[in-house]
Amino acid sequence: MIYADHAATTRPGPEALCAMRVCLEENWGNPSSLHQSGQRAAAALEDARRRVAACIGASPREIYFTAGGSEADNQALCSAARAGARRGRTHIVSTAFEHHAVLHALEALAEEGFEVQLLDVPPDGVVSAAQVAAAIRADTCLVSVMSANNELGTVQPVAELGALCRARGIPFHTDAVQAAGHLPVDVAAQQVDYLALSAHKFGGPKGAGVLYARRGLPVAPLIRGGAQERGQRGGTENLPALAGMAAALEASCRTLEAEARRLTRLRDRLTDGLSRIPHAALNGDPARRLPGHVSFCFEGVEGESLLLLLDEAGICASSGSACTSGSLEPSHVLLAIGRPAELAHGSLRLTLGPENTEADVDAILEAVPAAVARLRAMSPLWRDKINGKKPFLL
Amino acid sequence: MIYADHAATTRPGPEALCAMRVCLEENWGNPSSLHQSGQRAAAALEDARRRVAACIGASPREIYFTAGGSEADNQALCSAARAGARRGRTHIVSTAFEHHAVLHALEALAEEGFEVQLLDVPPDGVVSAAQVAAAIRADTCLVSVMSANNELGTVQPVAELGALCRARGIPFHTDAVQAAGHLPVDVAAQQVDYLALSAHKFGGPKGAGVLYARRGLPVAPLIRGGAQERGQRGGTENLPALAGMAAALEASCRTLEAEARRLTRLRDRLTDGLSRIPHAALNGDPARRLPGHVSFCFEGVEGESLLLLLDEAGICASSGSACTSGSLEPSHVLLAIGRPAELAHGSLRLTLGPENTEADVDAILEAVPAAVARLRAMSPLWRDKINGKKPFLL
Repeated sequence: MIYADHAATTRPGPEALCAMRVCLEENWGNPSSLHQSGQRAAAALEDARRRVAACIGASPREIYFTAGGSEADNQALCSAARAGARRGRTHIVSTAFEHHAVLHALEALAEEGFEVQLLDVPPDGVVSAAQVAAAIRADTCLVSVMSANNELGTVQPVAELGALCRARGIPFHTDAVQAAGHLPVDVAAQQVDYLALSAHKFGGPKGAGVLYARRGLPVAPLIRGGAQERGQRGGTENLPALAGMAAALEASCRTLEAEARRLTRLRDRLTDGLSRIPHAALNGDPARRLPGHVSFCFEGVEGESLLLLLDEAGICASSGSACTSGSLEPSHVLLAIGRPAELAHGSLRLTLGPENTEADVDAILEAVPAAVARLRAMSPLWRDKINGKKPFLL
Repeated sequence: MIYADHAATTRPGPEALCAMRVCLEENWGNPSSLHQSGQRAAAALEDARRRVAACIGASPREIYFTAGGSEADNQALCSAARAGARRGRTHIVSTAFEHHAVLHALEALAEEGFEVQLLDVPPDGVVSAAQVAAAIRADTCLVSVMSANNELGTVQPVAELGALCRARGIPFHTDAVQAAGHLPVDVAAQQVDYLALSAHKFGGPKGAGVLYARRGLPVAPLIRGGAQERGQRGGTENLPALAGMAAALEASCRTLEAEARRLTRLRDRLTDGLSRIPHAALNGDPARRLPGHVSFCFEGVEGESLLLLLDEAGICASSGSACTSGSLEPSHVLLAIGRPAELAHGSLRLTLGPENTEADVDAILEAVPAAVARLRAMSPLWRDKINGKKPFLL
């Protein structure tokens, strides 16, 4: 099996598994307990917090552990928005191609009375600071732009946006779920106020995430209960997963540069090869994108059928976000960058990770063109296009 | 080390560890992915759901997986309350000795405009159906009473409350976090509408919980995002923890009766022995309580100091809820059953589990009286009582 769907989830790495095993089999106490079993667990929890903080340029007090990236995004947005509302500011700026964890949380805030303005996304899949600057108003209480898009892989100008928002005194949130572990994340240098991470995207376990909130900025609980996470998240801390996340984040930071160079080479070879397929187009800017992240549209192809054929060939890929798979709607991200719905249905996302090799790329470059050709041969619509009865989109 | 704090957390059992290992090392795909890796994970997720449902008399469609008991409680209460409000019903009945996951969620609902009525708790720590019946009004939208209290161990008349609420057409929620794995939970027989479970209280991993919501009753997301959990909880499912939870719940159900008999014997021996300490009193009804759960107040003793002495003697115990440890406030639960604050500060909770033996009980029965005597000998207040200058409370 060639796993080329690392943007959906990653195999937990040895560092994470080792850290988890210790906390599942030995250090399994409740960190809130006062006895030795609890205090050992509490020490491990704070160690995980220090290590996560160090990896992203934060201080440990700015790290709130959550059960995942979606929870962290929801909590960041609700915390910032409601604090804004208390000062009479109810305008939120975000973009049309955010992850649903952000878009659906913003929809709920809109129902509460917030005015949510979603910026259009240029065809290259990179939002500009000028767009955000033009949208900011006196009553803007929050700007939220993701660090890297999960479907396209395009990287957003986070540091520029951070500087802009800081200068205007507006809290800036970035969903860094897809970026962390692949690009350097430095909340101080990037002037980020709120940030969300998800462990299972960088070799950590599922069920662990981080809400970073800059010191002094408001945080409010989504889950109320005990005094855990300084009162901002009730519930016994999931130490095994959190320790696994810290170990995985450290491991990914150590190898980040070398791995980014290696994956960028593989990615570019994959992009070149797939670009040779007729009526195919790369989605998003070819350079300003995550290492290892390739997204294509193939005209005359139905994305799910393509996935099934690749799966038969032993290749695990995705049409876009795993979180919306099974939905018949075309991807909101591909529509946002201007792909027509017909084309958006023919998308393929290939996301490479640590275990992928040149040989994997070779195999993918054999399988995809063959699968595309096979599907097109079966399509009456495609025959009409070939025969000039329908126009090509690409 | 003698671990006698199973109400705080339990050591993950072999069944849970085995199930987790498979999902961490082999079946680590994203259940939302369409390819073989994802579909294998999706099958394991639905298998876990079926098994959890079977253990509590529910159907799989009524099971919503969460990251823990607190999240499940919060989601149940918010879902039921807001649905009630849409029909003009804003009165909620609960009790003064619920877990903070319930109490703090209810406080937030009170801030939204709900009228929350917390019933007094009788000295025996068992709320009666008559109390609930008397509190119910035409505009009551929700009744929430825990299945067993986490500090006292007292078991509440869930089936009676369920029958009462069902007859009145009012949704009934029960926080079964402390009961599950120790008492039979059957949502059909008990006529429960919403129920919360937490895996790490019955030999499962931390980071996994269940929200049961009876078919047709409203559920609304706390965490918005992808289409996971039928759209009611965004975020990639934490399959390793959920599979571990299912395995642990099944294992605890298999041994429940025999283990309850064994623990009840140990508990009663512990209660008898500790009752011989002068000026000591069992908290809550001696019989209507969880097997293995003992809670005492010792006059003239500071609970945290007692814990430290026991910890030195190798015994892990608690003064009450782990979730509020470190707080200087006396336990809201002990105050609710009428213990004066001075006495509530001198509480000790001993909660036995599968690995505890007769020998453990012997060791505890040596250590506790010695520690109590030592602390009292150091206390000027106690000397005043002995010398008749201050009255005894017990």
